[in-house]
This record gives sequence, structure tokens and C-alpha cells, in this order.
Amino acid sequence: MPTRRASAQVNRARPQARRPAFPQVRSPGLPQGNAWWTGRQGSPYCRSVHYSPRGNVADLSPARARERFRAGERVPTAGWCRGWTQANLIAVPSGLRYELLLFAQLNPQACPVLDVGEPGAWSTPLFPGDLRTDLPGYRLYRDGRPVADLGDVREEWRDDLVPFLIGCSFTFEAALLAAGVPVRHLELGTNVPMYVTDVPCSAAGSLSGPLVVSMRPVPEALVATAVEVSGRYPMVHGAPVHTGDPAAIGIADLARPDFGDPVEVRAGEVPLFWACGVTPQAAVMASGVEYAIGHLPGHMAILDARDDDYRV
Amino acid sequence: MPTRRASAQVNRARPQARRPAFPQVRSPGLPQGNAWWTGRQGSPYCRSVHYSPRGNVADLSPARARERFRAGERVPTAGWCRGWTQANLIAVPSGLRYELLLFAQLNPQACPVLDVGEPGAWSTPLFPGDLRTDLPGYRLYRDGRPVADLGDVREEWRDDLVPFLIGCSFTFEAALLAAGVPVRHLELGTNVPMYVTDVPCSAAGSLSGPLVVSMRPVPEALVATAVEVSGRYPMVHGAPVHTGDPAAIGIADLARPDFGDPVEVRAGEVPLFWACGVTPQAAVMASGVEYAIGHLPGHMAILDARDDDYRV
Repeated sequence: MPTRRASAQVNRARPQARRPAFPQVRSPGLPQGNAWWTGRQGSPYCRSVHYSPRGNVADLSPARARERFRAGERVPTAGWCRGWTQANLIAVPSGLRYELLLFAQLNPQACPVLDVGEPGAWSTPLFPGDLRTDLPGYRLYRDGRPVADLGDVREEWRDDLVPFLIGCSFTFEAALLAAGVPVRHLELGTNVPMYVTDVPCSAAGSLSGPLVVSMRPVPEALVATAVEVSGRYPMVHGAPVHTGDPAAIGIADLARPDFGDPVEVRAGEVPLFWACGVTPQAAVMASGVEYAIGHLPGHMAILDARDDDYRV
Repeated sequence: MPTRRASAQVNRARPQARRPAFPQVRSPGLPQGNAWWTGRQGSPYCRSVHYSPRGNVADLSPARARERFRAGERVPTAGWCRGWTQANLIAVPSGLRYELLLFAQLNPQACPVLDVGEPGAWSTPLFPGDLRTDLPGYRLYRDGRPVADLGDVREEWRDDLVPFLIGCSFTFEAALLAAGVPVRHLELGTNVPMYVTDVPCSAAGSLSGPLVVSMRPVPEALVATAVEVSGRYPMVHGAPVHTGDPAAIGIADLARPDFGDPVEVRAGEVPLFWACGVTPQAAVMASGVEYAIGHLPGHMAILDARDDDYRV
């Protein structure tokens, strides 16, 4: 566990623990209720639940993958560009940039900042493509409410937006596989399941919200290996924040993820939960941020950086 | 090496490498030239070159140590409060807080942020004392120039100052000792030697400057152990950024540190250089920051946090 706060948040007793009132989506033109979050129905850019990455997408260069997304491919990026780092996007108005950076600093296991752009910029040193077009999906927020899922945000990219690229646990999945730890959503060719927990993040000024986690079921005999291998990647969420009982972190039903697709947890397997870079989007919602653009969960920015760059 | 940039900075070829023009101190009331930086002469709060920590200072609680500094004790803190985390202080005007936080983010091995205060605040969650009185020494900057070394900055603590607490390599010295790695400045009871290198940090807006390092001579047979042990503490500078030839990172003379006290490098020993939390003060100087307060190098803030909290 690389940092003090993130682990403290999860490990301490939480007698006050309760699931925060999470905004329900009631936006015109988008489907209602939980199904929308999961992407299992309706959302125009989450249709590919049973998308199977073709073998060759693992071998693509980041530049080539970005080109395909720019050309219109709308798919989760798990398994793409093996060996290259994937990142979460959150772009907020310049006036909020200090609070967002501080929020990330105070919650480093969930929000490891890999790169930051200038106000209005749509590329960064690690992402030399176009942040407005080169991800396979975006989510637009107004006043903390997700109002649209888009494939291109050139029109929405305000001059005052500051883009932050946040580490993603997809980065250590190749290392898990290499260590013999199976990754079910890769086997299934689906998006990773993500859940909003009842673990509060440390607040930074007006920004607060719950920790979001991703889940991978791991055979009991391989739990220690999975912890050890992912723990070597502290800049992309590191070791799990929780293993076992989902209820202990406020997750009522593993079959109903808040984002992404459900996967089966089989007999003899333990659900492992890793801090997730969708956490800033949960903070945007919980804090009613005026305007923000995130990636569509699971539809990541693929960076010109190697997974190995983030291994300790 | 936990982060990509910090290691890349040090390891890449630097054909353009040159020692940046570092401001010379010509402030009224302070001695001239390099001797001032080293603290070997003149600076009113660096007299204690041959200060030997009494055995019992290692056993003090952070609260008790802060009390002694508040009462007027002016000493480097290496060896104090064994098992408790020490931190660098840099307080800048609120208008610069985003740039400073981004600078830290972009140079995480040198500037790991452990805690941040509100504007005007003089305590933080991890430092429940008074940041204006409870360190054993301060350095005041105006327009990028160090203008005074002080033992109390209550008068100088402006309402708009935002205090940042940055990790310190003193934090892993107990672990080095426990692993059998000798730490010479602890044996001598002196301050650690620190050097301004010719390795440029990544700039953040108006803030830029050279990397500062601390140096510990280590017997050749123990270099790997020292790297391994300190590498487990990525939030307090982690593994060395350089081993061996000081000239490779722009250090002309190990006997003349820019801050702290020199120590002998004996036959069979290798100088190991760790990124140092004085780096933000070097950036304050190099960037001509209007107003800032730092700790006096080596005279740290002692936190209510355990060394073990920062071990991966």
C-alpha cells in the first residue's frame, strides 16, 4: 500500500458508513435508472457488451489505437495495446483545477495523476493525440449531472478546461496475466465491473465524493499473487483496497455494477477490489461541479507510456 | 523507482546539462557566498554543525519535539523521534498554490506531498502543532531571494500562505540502520549534506528549478541494500536518483554542499544521492517567487505519522 491515506480510508472502522445519495440519471435522451450506469442497455456508446477484442488490438501501438477511436470505434479498451499505459480522463474548468489536483493528492490510490494539460489544451506530453477525439467514449457533466455520452467532444471542449490523466488498473492486467492470474473480463471481452462504494474520499475544498472501485474475481490460491503483482504498480492504483465481502464497502449486489459489465464470481474465487480512476467523476457528480468532461468508464486514453514505467 | 518522470530526468542523456545560474545571496545582514549556503559559517541557526543528538531525542514523541523547538531549540532533526515521519515545509501565496502542487506532481520523487493546509492555516491534519513556531528553523524568501533565517515566523505568516508538507529522506534512515547500512551524518551528529544538481525539474507554469539531492556515502557491499530499503519508501523520495560520480549530476565538490554539512566519503564507499525536499525552495529561488517561507534545510517538521505509513 503505497500511501497512508488511501489505505487508512479503507481499513479504518466506519461506524458512520452509509451509501451516499448518488445522483440518479434523469437526463433527457438517456435511459433511466441503474441500467444506464452499467452500460448494459441503451447508452449509445456502451452497446458492445460482448465486444471481443480481436487479437490484434493487443498488438496495436497507442498512436494506431487513437487513430481508430478518432475514426469512430466505440469500445472498452481493456486488452488493447498490451504493454502501454491506459488512463482515465477528467477535464474541469480552470477555476477548479487546484481543488481537483488537491483531491487527487489527498486520494492518491484512487486518483494517481499521470499527466496534466494546460487550460484549453487537448494534448499532454504523455498523450500526444487529441484528447477531444482520440478516446473511444466520453461523458459530459453539467452541474454534476451526466448529460450526454459522446464519441467526440470537440464542440464541448471549453477554452478553460484543464485535462487530468489519472492512472488506470488496466495498466497492470498484463502483469497479472503473466503471473498466472486470470482476468475474467478480458476472457469475456467485456468492460471491467466498477462500483460506487460507501467509502468517502478525503475532501478538497468543494470536492468530495465516494471511492469507486473496479472488481476482478481471483481464485483463492492466487489472491496473494494478485495483491503482490498489482502492488508493484502504485501509480496505477497498486494493491487492492479490499478483498472479499462486497457489503463491507457498501456494495449491495456484485451483479449490478455502477459502471461497466458484471462478471461471475465462481466458487473458490474471491472478489478483489481496486481503487478506480472513475472516482473523480463520482466527485464531480457528488459535488455538483458546473461543467466537466470525463472518459466513458472503461473507454480509456491510451498513452505513449509503458506499463513498466509505473512498476516499482 | 515509483514514478516515470523523476527517473527519466536523471537517467536520460543530458547533452545540454549545465549548472543553472543559482542566485548568490547578497542580502543585508547575511554572510556572503557559498559558505552561507552550507551553514558552516555565519547563519544564526546553522551554528550547530557538531551538534550531537542526545540519545533521548530519538525517543521523543513528535509533540514533545515540537514543544522543544517552540521553546527555542535550533538544531537539525536527523535522528530525532525515531519511527516518526519528518517533512519539508514550503509555504507560498495562495495564487501560486496550483503551480506549486503541479510542480510537486510533475516531480514526485523530489516533491512527494504528504499534506497541504488551507490558505493562512498553520496546522494540517498530519501536523497538529503550529507550523510558524514548531520547526527548529525557517528560511524566508522575497522575490526568490533568501532574506532571513528565523526561529519563529508568526510575524511573517501571511493570511494567504498555503503550507505544503513534503516528504523527507530522514524518514527511511531508521530502516537503513536496521538493515545494517551506516548513516554517517547520524554517526557524526551533523546535518545531511545537500547539493543543487544540474538536473532540471519539470516546470509547472512559472515554477522551475534544479533538482536538489541529499547524499549518504554507503560501502560498496551495501549499495544494493540501501537502494532496496529506501525504494520501499516511495512517498519520502524512495530509491536514490543517482549513485557514484557526483560530476554526472553537476556536483563539483562533495566537500562543499549547498546546504547542510559535508561528510567524508571513504575508500570503498560510493556516494548515493537521493532526491531532496529542498527542491521546492530551489524552485522558489530560481523562479523569483514573490514571497515564501521554507524550513531551514535539515530542520524539519516532525509529523504525527509513522515512517511505516509510507512503506510499500
